[in-house]
Amino acid sequence: MLGEIIAIGNELTSGRIANTTSGFAARHLFTAGYEIHAMHTIGDSPSLIGEVLKAAINRVDFVVVTGGLGATDDDLTTEAVACALDRPTIPNLELLSQIRNHLDAISASPVSPLEKLAWLPQGAEALTLQARMSGYQLIHANKPIFFLPGVPYQMESLLLEQVLPRLAHWNHGRHLVTFQRIFKTFGMEEAAINRLIVNLNLDHSINIGYYPVFPEVHVSLTLRSPMATKAAALFEAACRSVEVTLGDVIYGQDQDSLAGVTGRLLKAANLRLATAESCTGGMIGHLLTQVAGSSHYYLGGVIAYANSMKMSSLGVEETLLAAYGAVSREVAEAMATGIRHRSKADIAISVTGVAGPDGGTIAKPVGTVFIGMTTENETAVHPFYFSGNRQQIQEITAKTALDLIRRYLLQQGRT
Amino acid sequence: MLGEIIAIGNELTSGRIANTTSGFAARHLFTAGYEIHAMHTIGDSPSLIGEVLKAAINRVDFVVVTGGLGATDDDLTTEAVACALDRPTIPNLELLSQIRNHLDAISASPVSPLEKLAWLPQGAEALTLQARMSGYQLIHANKPIFFLPGVPYQMESLLLEQVLPRLAHWNHGRHLVTFQRIFKTFGMEEAAINRLIVNLNLDHSINIGYYPVFPEVHVSLTLRSPMATKAAALFEAACRSVEVTLGDVIYGQDQDSLAGVTGRLLKAANLRLATAESCTGGMIGHLLTQVAGSSHYYLGGVIAYANSMKMSSLGVEETLLAAYGAVSREVAEAMATGIRHRSKADIAISVTGVAGPDGGTIAKPVGTVFIGMTTENETAVHPFYFSGNRQQIQEITAKTALDLIRRYLLQQGRT
Repeated sequence: MLGEIIAIGNELTSGRIANTTSGFAARHLFTAGYEIHAMHTIGDSPSLIGEVLKAAINRVDFVVVTGGLGATDDDLTTEAVACALDRPTIPNLELLSQIRNHLDAISASPVSPLEKLAWLPQGAEALTLQARMSGYQLIHANKPIFFLPGVPYQMESLLLEQVLPRLAHWNHGRHLVTFQRIFKTFGMEEAAINRLIVNLNLDHSINIGYYPVFPEVHVSLTLRSPMATKAAALFEAACRSVEVTLGDVIYGQDQDSLAGVTGRLLKAANLRLATAESCTGGMIGHLLTQVAGSSHYYLGGVIAYANSMKMSSLGVEETLLAAYGAVSREVAEAMATGIRHRSKADIAISVTGVAGPDGGTIAKPVGTVFIGMTTENETAVHPFYFSGNRQQIQEITAKTALDLIRRYLLQQGRT
Repeated sequence: MLGEIIAIGNELTSGRIANTTSGFAARHLFTAGYEIHAMHTIGDSPSLIGEVLKAAINRVDFVVVTGGLGATDDDLTTEAVACALDRPTIPNLELLSQIRNHLDAISASPVSPLEKLAWLPQGAEALTLQARMSGYQLIHANKPIFFLPGVPYQMESLLLEQVLPRLAHWNHGRHLVTFQRIFKTFGMEEAAINRLIVNLNLDHSINIGYYPVFPEVHVSLTLRSPMATKAAALFEAACRSVEVTLGDVIYGQDQDSLAGVTGRLLKAANLRLATAESCTGGMIGHLLTQVAGSSHYYLGGVIAYANSMKMSSLGVEETLLAAYGAVSREVAEAMATGIRHRSKADIAISVTGVAGPDGGTIAKPVGTVFIGMTTENETAVHPFYFSGNRQQIQEITAKTALDLIRRYLLQQGRT
């Protein structure tokens, strides 16, 4: 079943807000077996909204529209739909009473702009009765159109809880089975990965995509087929070939993150990690603690941004800083051993570098980074020379630190 | 002058990669005075690429196409263009020689897939001769079409350095003057802001947009006019009304970030900050150090994720943790005074809370957060009860901490 997605809002066509809802809808619709023909982003113009919606209904089997459903004055979607599809808006009484109950609970104002949310195009069915959220379904020309709010977390929950089940019902029996796996890699360039995979001569029915997601490269294998069993075997064989060929360059699959995978390895090895960050300013800790349950293996650490913090909180000697500079192999080592000693962690990682745009010298240009790692038995410092802007250097430094831990733990697991 | 943007790639229509390039292009084209009629995202299908491109050229004055120009096998844009616009590809010899020089420097392989980048549709002009980057301009039906790589940092530099100057030349003398200002707010709900601004009765030529960007709300004022001087006065008057009405709820404008604004205030007051983070795990430090020059006012801090770190690195007493729990007013206070004492900072902030999804109790459910702030003269702890998922609670906690510092410094500046 083919669909199109339409996102509405001047904030999107002026580029001020990144459109994350269309991608979210596309991802979940795709994995549920639907094909997305095209996605459109258009401004708050009622005539253009109507035009694009009518054209999409003619082309495909269903349409998902996001944005422009709110209570503020720039929310024009319902008005545009009413006009384009000739369905005047009428109040949904159940919705209206919910909104009034909600308002009674928080304020005394008799008429609120929120009541606008209860006026829907004739024939529309509300997807939710929650007073702060809008969303409805309209069957037009015997095809379902779903209207969802543009606010990502609202849109996302309605898509998962309302749109996907309704579409599955509608679509009954017309599925293609979709197999897709994303291999997430770190530490090899896209062109090199492409060369290795081309040499595998995988079955031509398997679609392969290469996506640099700085500083990672993601590789997708996709197979769509009406024959589930045969396709499953073919797909699994292709995935195994890719895994064998890329080896440890693959850190994970699908929803995995480098921090999550590194955390799982730490937990499996029953090791506790501490961090000492200078140029990344807390980003390694932030990546680690985005993962629920990270308290099982991450103790915390020190953000030693100023030299005074390197001395007072990590015990780095002033003479070392004076002799070698804060960005040096020696200071990286002292930071790593300092945090391990003070936190009593099993393994500690340290980073010190020049993230820029200022602070570079001829000897240590912007992008110079030292990453130290220490355990009970060994201590090593790795120098790196990254390129990019400040944010990119911080991100590649933080992820390289996580990847060093990951590769160390994989190595340990094998010996 | 009207334009459309077309982004190409199965990774986008399957929702696996967020399309950031279209938004970047839209933002910069919009501020340069062009209107974006629509943005389309389509898969790696040569026939659909051709169809959408031809339709766009008929509707508008220029088109920007991103993606599908690389050397891997799923890059089909040039092929599709050659076919749709009847312009067979021919090798660009200058580009070809650059690519060969580059390859000679890094490898000995005689023929590389990278050479594909040198084959352009007849009549196309290369935008860059850098060997690892593709991009070209094609004038078709007397309208410029710009083809840019889909990799964000490559696309972004070509758009700024090549597309905007070429369009300005093309467009000479047909500009509308665009005034736009984004007010970034923290701490007031979208509907409340909308109500306050509606009451101002601003001139109807001024377009107002409201955008919740969790956990902030951004408000845009836009005015487009051929009459620069008159419009400028009207626009500035409207902006002043909004500023007066929203007051300190506005933390900044346009490219400002909460961390950047808080940093500027710290620098102006000549105060140095330190942080002690538990549930945010380094995010406050990360936000602060994303800003270039943050070493002028941010010393660093401790990520005290485990209780052992709260004791060893911040001096929190074990009896305090036992009596009140890690998530408590008392521990937040001890963390703040501990980091200020140890770092010798002028001002210190601490956060401790339950980010979830686990760890909540009836007395302290997920979302319970204590934020402590201390200076030489005073210490205060603020309790919060946030809702949302783990990432949202971490983000609203980190930004609330920054906002508390900002409001404190504004207050100090006035007395």
